[in-house]
Amino acid sequence: MGNCLECLGNFFCRQKNTNVRFSLPAVCFAWQIAMIVLFGVFIRYDGESDVKKWLEHKKTENISSDIENDFYFRYPSFQDVHVMIFVGFGFLMTFLKRYSFGGIGFNFLIAAFGLQWALLMQGWFHSLDPATGKIYIGIESLINADFCCAGSLIAMGALLGKVSPVQLMVVTLFGITLFAVEEYIILDLLHCKDAGGSMVIHAFGGYYGLGISWVLYRPHLHQSKRLNGSVYHSDMFAMIGTLFLWMFWPSFNSAITDHGDGQPRAAINTYLALASSVLTAVAISSLSQKKGKLDMVHIQNATLAGGVAMGTAAEFMITPYGSLIVGFCCGIISTFGYLFVTPFLENTLKLQDTCGVHNLHAVPGMLGGFIGAIVAAAASEEVYGKEGLIHVFDFEGEFANRSVQTQGGFQAAGTCVAIAFGLVGGSLVGLILRLPIWGDPADDNCFDDEVYWEVPEEEEIIPPVLEYNNHMIHKHQDISESNFSVEQS
Amino acid sequence: MGNCLECLGNFFCRQKNTNVRFSLPAVCFAWQIAMIVLFGVFIRYDGESDVKKWLEHKKTENISSDIENDFYFRYPSFQDVHVMIFVGFGFLMTFLKRYSFGGIGFNFLIAAFGLQWALLMQGWFHSLDPATGKIYIGIESLINADFCCAGSLIAMGALLGKVSPVQLMVVTLFGITLFAVEEYIILDLLHCKDAGGSMVIHAFGGYYGLGISWVLYRPHLHQSKRLNGSVYHSDMFAMIGTLFLWMFWPSFNSAITDHGDGQPRAAINTYLALASSVLTAVAISSLSQKKGKLDMVHIQNATLAGGVAMGTAAEFMITPYGSLIVGFCCGIISTFGYLFVTPFLENTLKLQDTCGVHNLHAVPGMLGGFIGAIVAAAASEEVYGKEGLIHVFDFEGEFANRSVQTQGGFQAAGTCVAIAFGLVGGSLVGLILRLPIWGDPADDNCFDDEVYWEVPEEEEIIPPVLEYNNHMIHKHQDISESNFSVEQS
Amino acid sequence: MGNCLECLGNFFCRQKNTNVRFSLPAVCFAWQIAMIVLFGVFIRYDGESDVKKWLEHKKTENISSDIENDFYFRYPSFQDVHVMIFVGFGFLMTFLKRYSFGGIGFNFLIAAFGLQWALLMQGWFHSLDPATGKIYIGIESLINADFCCAGSLIAMGALLGKVSPVQLMVVTLFGITLFAVEEYIILDLLHCKDAGGSMVIHAFGGYYGLGISWVLYRPHLHQSKRLNGSVYHSDMFAMIGTLFLWMFWPSFNSAITDHGDGQPRAAINTYLALASSVLTAVAISSLSQKKGKLDMVHIQNATLAGGVAMGTAAEFMITPYGSLIVGFCCGIISTFGYLFVTPFLENTLKLQDTCGVHNLHAVPGMLGGFIGAIVAAAASEEVYGKEGLIHVFDFEGEFANRSVQTQGGFQAAGTCVAIAFGLVGGSLVGLILRLPIWGDPADDNCFDDEVYWEVPEEEEIIPPVLEYNNHMIHKHQDISESNFSVEQS
Repeated sequence: MGNCLECLGNFFCRQKNTNVRFSLPAVCFAWQIAMIVLFGVFIRYDGESDVKKWLEHKKTENISSDIENDFYFRYPSFQDVHVMIFVGFGFLMTFLKRYSFGGIGFNFLIAAFGLQWALLMQGWFHSLDPATGKIYIGIESLINADFCCAGSLIAMGALLGKVSPVQLMVVTLFGITLFAVEEYIILDLLHCKDAGGSMVIHAFGGYYGLGISWVLYRPHLHQSKRLNGSVYHSDMFAMIGTLFLWMFWPSFNSAITDHGDGQPRAAINTYLALASSVLTAVAISSLSQKKGKLDMVHIQNATLAGGVAMGTAAEFMITPYGSLIVGFCCGIISTFGYLFVTPFLENTLKLQDTCGVHNLHAVPGMLGGFIGAIVAAAASEEVYGKEGLIHVFDFEGEFANRSVQTQGGFQAAGTCVAIAFGLVGGSLVGLILRLPIWGDPADDNCFDDEVYWEVPEEEEIIPPVLEYNNHMIHKHQDISESNFSVEQS
Repeated sequence: MGNCLECLGNFFCRQKNTNVRFSLPAVCFAWQIAMIVLFGVFIRYDGESDVKKWLEHKKTENISSDIENDFYFRYPSFQDVHVMIFVGFGFLMTFLKRYSFGGIGFNFLIAAFGLQWALLMQGWFHSLDPATGKIYIGIESLINADFCCAGSLIAMGALLGKVSPVQLMVVTLFGITLFAVEEYIILDLLHCKDAGGSMVIHAFGGYYGLGISWVLYRPHLHQSKRLNGSVYHSDMFAMIGTLFLWMFWPSFNSAITDHGDGQPRAAINTYLALASSVLTAVAISSLSQKKGKLDMVHIQNATLAGGVAMGTAAEFMITPYGSLIVGFCCGIISTFGYLFVTPFLENTLKLQDTCGVHNLHAVPGMLGGFIGAIVAAAASEEVYGKEGLIHVFDFEGEFANRSVQTQGGFQAAGTCVAIAFGLVGGSLVGLILRLPIWGDPADDNCFDDEVYWEVPEEEEIIPPVLEYNNHMIHKHQDISESNFSVEQS
Repeated sequence: MGNCLECLGNFFCRQKNTNVRFSLPAVCFAWQIAMIVLFGVFIRYDGESDVKKWLEHKKTENISSDIENDFYFRYPSFQDVHVMIFVGFGFLMTFLKRYSFGGIGFNFLIAAFGLQWALLMQGWFHSLDPATGKIYIGIESLINADFCCAGSLIAMGALLGKVSPVQLMVVTLFGITLFAVEEYIILDLLHCKDAGGSMVIHAFGGYYGLGISWVLYRPHLHQSKRLNGSVYHSDMFAMIGTLFLWMFWPSFNSAITDHGDGQPRAAINTYLALASSVLTAVAISSLSQKKGKLDMVHIQNATLAGGVAMGTAAEFMITPYGSLIVGFCCGIISTFGYLFVTPFLENTLKLQDTCGVHNLHAVPGMLGGFIGAIVAAAASEEVYGKEGLIHVFDFEGEFANRSVQTQGGFQAAGTCVAIAFGLVGGSLVGLILRLPIWGDPADDNCFDDEVYWEVPEEEEIIPPVLEYNNHMIHKHQDISESNFSVEQS
């Protein structure tokens, strides 16, 4: 039966070759060997994970306890972020009825691929020691590498089901590279604050994916329409992703904020914004249907908008009710996006966005950037204290004399930089992906795990002898159709 | 076909209107706006998450390291509790074959809804600063808010599939309110200890749900019997819930215990009690079936009874073998409950308890309260040390002269208060829910996601024309074979 | 229809009695009561979880803060390990189409059973206080107990679907016992380092399972071939296991390493090795198929090989690129194992290994042991510092004068001890399991949950009357009813 399908597939899209037997292993091996070499040249343990340096450090700094090691401040948050990247993003992309293997599997592959490159790229831009020419990594580097991957995983959401794993690796390779550059511009040159990455992760990642998807527009994608939807159990798997993202978002936004007050404040703000966006997402979802029924797409996605939008402002003194307001608005905007903007993008702008990253990441990320700008500009010595302002906004060194208003302006500028990088970078990467060498599927073959995975036979057709007897009386042509249909479902 | 179903549904229950298109959004919006206003008036960051206060606090208290911030003591436990509330309780309620969306989705909705109200209610009762009229929240407040939601989520278990989302929000609104009051009476006025909430969470929540369910008795619920059961994969989803509850219960019981020795002791005791209840639940489950086969209902639920029953005593010096004994007994009692008490309640007392919260929460919670009373009364200076007794039982201020025997008496009284609040409060809330305005389903329409969710089409019926052709020609004997094949698969 | 199946089953295997109604409860009860008695005699809280001792300890040691309690160093890692044991191993074993209940349920049972016995066995060997005759347990003991269970759960992977729950309990009882002895020899007598258990957990557990499986060889297992495979959704459930194992492996390998630099270093090394093995596992999987398609078996298992192989060396200064190299090689070796070695073992050595533990645990664990030996032997004062060498390798007391080369030799010897214990112990336990009293299934009845579980009826066949009627008359209008019935289910 698998053969049947293959024949049909070949018949309909003779020009498309989805065989990645050479390209996928080649990219994986070449890449991994390059990583080993570059790590050998550049990457070393930092002072908190190198036994010699840590013992010396404890002596020279007169540190009495090992608990002062940054590991104990950040490791629980790191693990939560790690779960978001692999289980959160991964299962969120399993909602398609026959592309769950691809959703979870390719997410796994490109995140594992990306985080190594991210350690290098972020190291070169942020922490290359000029004296030794080495990059020293610790737990915070791992968190940042995971963050960096998130940008490319978001982009993957827009492309889900329409590209080959090799293309996804190209998306990730360039995505990580662009990320490191825009992050350097935004955080270092513009001196913005963006602990949870509304700008650098979500706005960038969202627009990056949309840019690619726009260039890769498939006019005949409706031929795969039968597979572009969920079934009952695939929606349940997607809820695993949603919930782990939702629960651990406070850790995401607080993972690399300041020790001490910064981490709990970011966690509290994010927790509240998320709770608020659940209620408004449910409200709009119910309002939009004739009988007030809820739509799983909204519950799986729009409930998370509050977390995205708090990525920048979470570490500021936005106040608890401010967080609720942010979640309130973003839950509404995101759900409206799924209802009206995604169809508009597809029909009018020719932009196909499988997971709706426009509504979950791009727009809430952009809003989060501007919210951060406003909250920064409104910061006052009364609320933060003199020392607190310096502490929160890092008004030190060459930035010692920056006012909060100026900071707000730079935050807004940073948001625009992130969007620009996403759109321009995405379009360019999209052009690269149009080369006919990447093994992407034909238009009538999208959203189908059969293309890149050994898919187990269906439960329904197990004892084939019995089935065969049943079908004995059928007409010839019915059999093939019947099997074909089962196979497809 | 969806239309067909709808027509039939309307035909059979013309009097029931399950349209929540107005009521659900109205409640969500009204509620969320109220929350924003109330948070604006009352809620502020506490001294560990406010940058100004924390920097001052460090100076005045001469705190050398940020690691002394309560965040680093409690955040990992908070995240575990958070997972229990959203993934644990959520997936535990997905076991029904066609109510998984409702189980996971409504759990998500009402927990997000409840935790905001919980922050206010618990704040007013426990931490309103009389000087400023503000409530100061930190990580411990978030844990307590999650705990507070747990009470209402437990109640939801008894009602699962039989009520509308609007009704669940009413259940939660009153549930959180009652919780805050009974918690104030038990913890503050009676000065009980109940770190893991055997009394205030489980006994209260369980009896609250039973009280409501008793008032909402549906004499014709058997009309929905075809949907009141699990299928293979829905049982697997429920196991996700079971395992995350089981694994993180040590964090639940230790999340708000004393820094230092209190947290590890509570974790160890809970870990042991849970392990023990797995073995006895399995034993009784196997004993109860003709061929010794295990029943998933018992594995999913009764294995958790040890954690519920250790909610009060976990922070005391109950000893490791004491914990094993508690788990041993509660695993047996809970499994017996599923075998005999639930059917008895339904047939004799007219009390329908979908998830069996009576056996998992109400009874083990009550037992946990009394176990706590006994362990408290048996506490001795020899075991705890003089200082230790004061430390564990907070014998300070007006309670400085309380003896452990008196404490035991108050613990037992607290358990009774929790049960009374649950039963009386539940009955009253049940009466409110009998008003015909809430959009609840008809008796023959329960346990069905079609009522409140846009449910995707089935995998099996995708190419319906082909199905039709197949069935046209079948012979008699083929049928049985065909069914047999389905069975095997 | 269920009856039909049963009849057939009885016909083919009259000699096999799978009724465990007596034996399973008897073992559970006897065991749990024995545990309570032994815990009563031996187990007490350690100094960090006993209120009296902790308060005294703080005074005598002049500890200023409760954060110095080991709980705050290790509890987050403990919870990650706990998730790996119950969700990670559990869901990894749900990949079979009709043995998911058994995979997740028996894993749950024997882990809960094993951890109690592990606390005792490890206590007797490692921490029995000769003065009082007591074992004092704390958070680190819980981590070690979980580790100890891991060995038996790995062995279960080789036996999955072919043994009864009672047999699994016997496997665990002896597995824990053997584990404690080999661990004592390796860690205490040979003074090896093995924080993540490449030797003591993975090599031992893998070969233990293979030894048992070899003795229990079933020549007619092909009769159950129809059930020895996955379906689409069972593969998705298995991915839950894979991902939680993958994500939390850094915690596994760092959970009991030294405070301070040891924990972050072990986490970083493991994180990198795992990322690297994802890429090579994908590469080989794709290479091995005609069209370059990926195989879920490889993605679910071989991606984890890097974590297994870093179990010993993770806490050493293996360097980041060294970790990548280890992952690189083990990803390849493990995938090759699934492709070629498992079929070879089955056909030539008569060794049936359901989950392929040979490729995921036995071989990578053995390699991990030897890698650890090499890295230890290559340790230099230049890299570690004089103090650092003593710190990392515990060159204290009677081992103060051991050279790193000698240490390397002992590490290699330790690996051989682990393998020998596994193979010999496994063969002996296999002989015990051949007694005809354990209720194991017949050869044509393996991999089937029907044997030990009350399995819910299938979705497809729910309203059987309608189905039957439909098929009887085969009229046009009946079809819609048929569809309706499917809809309902």
